[in-house]
Amino acid sequence: MALYAVEVSDQIMIAHSFRGEIFGPAQNVHGATFVIRVAFFADKLDAHGIVVDIARAHEVLKAALAPLSYRNLDQLPQFAGVNTTTEFLTKYLFDQLAAAARKGELGRDGRELASIRVTVAESPVARAWYEAPLW
Amino acid sequence: MALYAVEVSDQIMIAHSFRGEIFGPAQNVHGATFVIRVAFFADKLDAHGIVVDIARAHEVLKAALAPLSYRNLDQLPQFAGVNTTTEFLTKYLFDQLAAAARKGELGRDGRELASIRVTVAESPVARAWYEAPLW
Amino acid sequence: MALYAVEVSDQIMIAHSFRGEIFGPAQNVHGATFVIRVAFFADKLDAHGIVVDIARAHEVLKAALAPLSYRNLDQLPQFAGVNTTTEFLTKYLFDQLAAAARKGELGRDGRELASIRVTVAESPVARAWYEAPLW
Amino acid sequence: MALYAVEVSDQIMIAHSFRGEIFGPAQNVHGATFVIRVAFFADKLDAHGIVVDIARAHEVLKAALAPLSYRNLDQLPQFAGVNTTTEFLTKYLFDQLAAAARKGELGRDGRELASIRVTVAESPVARAWYEAPLW
Amino acid sequence: MALYAVEVSDQIMIAHSFRGEIFGPAQNVHGATFVIRVAFFADKLDAHGIVVDIARAHEVLKAALAPLSYRNLDQLPQFAGVNTTTEFLTKYLFDQLAAAARKGELGRDGRELASIRVTVAESPVARAWYEAPLW
Amino acid sequence: MALYAVEVSDQIMIAHSFRGEIFGPAQNVHGATFVIRVAFFADKLDAHGIVVDIARAHEVLKAALAPLSYRNLDQLPQFAGVNTTTEFLTKYLFDQLAAAARKGELGRDGRELASIRVTVAESPVARAWYEAPLW
Repeated sequence: MALYAVEVSDQIMIAHSFRGEIFGPAQNVHGATFVIRVAFFADKLDAHGIVVDIARAHEVLKAALAPLSYRNLDQLPQFAGVNTTTEFLTKYLFDQLAAAARKGELGRDGRELASIRVTVAESPVARAWYEAPLW
Repeated sequence: MALYAVEVSDQIMIAHSFRGEIFGPAQNVHGATFVIRVAFFADKLDAHGIVVDIARAHEVLKAALAPLSYRNLDQLPQFAGVNTTTEFLTKYLFDQLAAAARKGELGRDGRELASIRVTVAESPVARAWYEAPLW
Repeated sequence: MALYAVEVSDQIMIAHSFRGEIFGPAQNVHGATFVIRVAFFADKLDAHGIVVDIARAHEVLKAALAPLSYRNLDQLPQFAGVNTTTEFLTKYLFDQLAAAARKGELGRDGRELASIRVTVAESPVARAWYEAPLW
Repeated sequence: MALYAVEVSDQIMIAHSFRGEIFGPAQNVHGATFVIRVAFFADKLDAHGIVVDIARAHEVLKAALAPLSYRNLDQLPQFAGVNTTTEFLTKYLFDQLAAAARKGELGRDGRELASIRVTVAESPVARAWYEAPLW
Repeated sequence: MALYAVEVSDQIMIAHSFRGEIFGPAQNVHGATFVIRVAFFADKLDAHGIVVDIARAHEVLKAALAPLSYRNLDQLPQFAGVNTTTEFLTKYLFDQLAAAARKGELGRDGRELASIRVTVAESPVARAWYEAPLW
Repeated sequence: MALYAVEVSDQIMIAHSFRGEIFGPAQNVHGATFVIRVAFFADKLDAHGIVVDIARAHEVLKAALAPLSYRNLDQLPQFAGVNTTTEFLTKYLFDQLAAAARKGELGRDGRELASIRVTVAESPVARAWYEAPLW
């Protein structure tokens, strides 16, 4: 199936810790610079020749990241009792961005968007992503 | 389904402008260094152990880019009346590269290639891609 | 379909040569720094909130690469009579990593993993990948 | 001599053209995504343990870039009769940023800063920089 | 003056917080993935044709980073009462690596090395470095 | 002192081996993708507003690399009895490029160029460079 995508990126700096022996030293409070990329997929371009407006995509991503930026995720109520792993955050951000897309906040009827992929890089040698349809 | 891909890249420096208020300051004549990557997909490797010859893939990509390189896209007849957005260009280049692939210009019977993906990065924080089957 | 992925990377420095006129100067003994990334895909996160443990993913990748590192691939028995192209190596490494995943060496029941993608970059302008289901 | 540096980066998308046969096809109106990095050098850290505040460095850089962003440089009065080469722009931006640094706009007495380096990358394979003392 | 350099890199994931209003939201406990590069400079190559052994340079860097890795720097005694800014850490790591170099831990008489530069990138858009002679 | 620089890059894929126990497994025939960057420094821009013509800089670099590309460096007469380490190659390429610069092959009187720096990256985590005056 033919598919277009537009992807924008931004970054945040956060602290957190994990519960579970499998995490070894990452059970300590440590932190990460997360470089986040979000891709919006659509079957067709709109009348302007775009998937979504890149400027608005940057704004929507920034809004999703703001509550996490410069925070210790262990202390945020929305993450109580949760390991805020890189994988977990890909899905958490997907949910925020999917809600914005469905509401039309990207300047295009959300029904014209097919799916979203959120990629979170935690270092030059490790990253995770989550991709799912919007409808 | 199992799938192989080979991807090569090159870049061009172009000027253009967009029509539509949604584009804000990008309605002015401005420009971009576009870093283009094209991925060729196939179910199987050929007898040499390759998807397509990487040297020929570079040549075919360079040939597709040459007419755009160091040009103001607003003045090219093939783009008359069109917003040459990053997304639009992914599809435009896909069409050029798909034609070359179908004609066997990559050194392999085009019917042995499954699909093509063209990625165009316009900056470190924004890119677009288009992927579609060849047949 | 919704899908999670975790990807880790490492690199090796090898020599090899290719047989076949299509390869031009690459018929000579030459070499490459291969930057390898392996992505593990799963439908769901496990109870810890991960796809696979990133530290173990790094170890499994390192173990798969060790027999090739600082070697002339032309002289390794497992590659006798084969062109060790970038594409060929994506599939070769996929087979090693898929075997490890199926055996549970990534710290998770292999049946909970859906597929693997191995990407091998040979230079800033050329790379290949292979992706296939595990089951 | 011991020296500290802090460097921040941002990017702009511009159009321009060059006069002179040496420029070949770049005599056409074309464009570039310029990725700009500015490094501030100092002999000593201040009482907070910084060279300059990174947030303010980003703001000062953004302010210097704003008049050029999404513009055809050929049409800007400050560049009349000038080839706005990558090298030229490194010095032009140096002058803007040096003025800001001397005026204390980076949150530190300008006399405590030693020099500035401005790097402008025009593509993955070409960049230029200019470095000079502030006093 | 003619000068050779060899540079290796590694990364750590840490948490910390800063004191001082200038830091704004970075006064909160947050974190970073720091990508560290250390360059060793020498006037001449040794009899093997190297500045220092790259494998040993990686080990020495890893040893300097180990006490910080996966830690909250606010809780480490060596950083009591200090803002562990990116700049501060470049100098802190310089001191560790300079001591190792002077002691000959890089496999070459330390007197044959001229200087060291430590670069710490905190994100794709911000980094700091410190460079100083060894003698 | 104020200084301008222009830097271009290209890459080669080579095989080689090293003599000396310090090299461990790199005593085997292995290989590398070397990403080479060459920076030309000058006090002043020329009448066109450039340090050197970027297109010619690319050509001069390509010409210097051609004899090494897709070769086993152990078999080249110019490297007989030498460890072709990354550091060694920075100086070897410097000599080639300095000769070209002094002869005016970069389209500018060589006396107007101050120095050259050659950087050779052997992997994402290791690189070397050599910098020296031209006169």
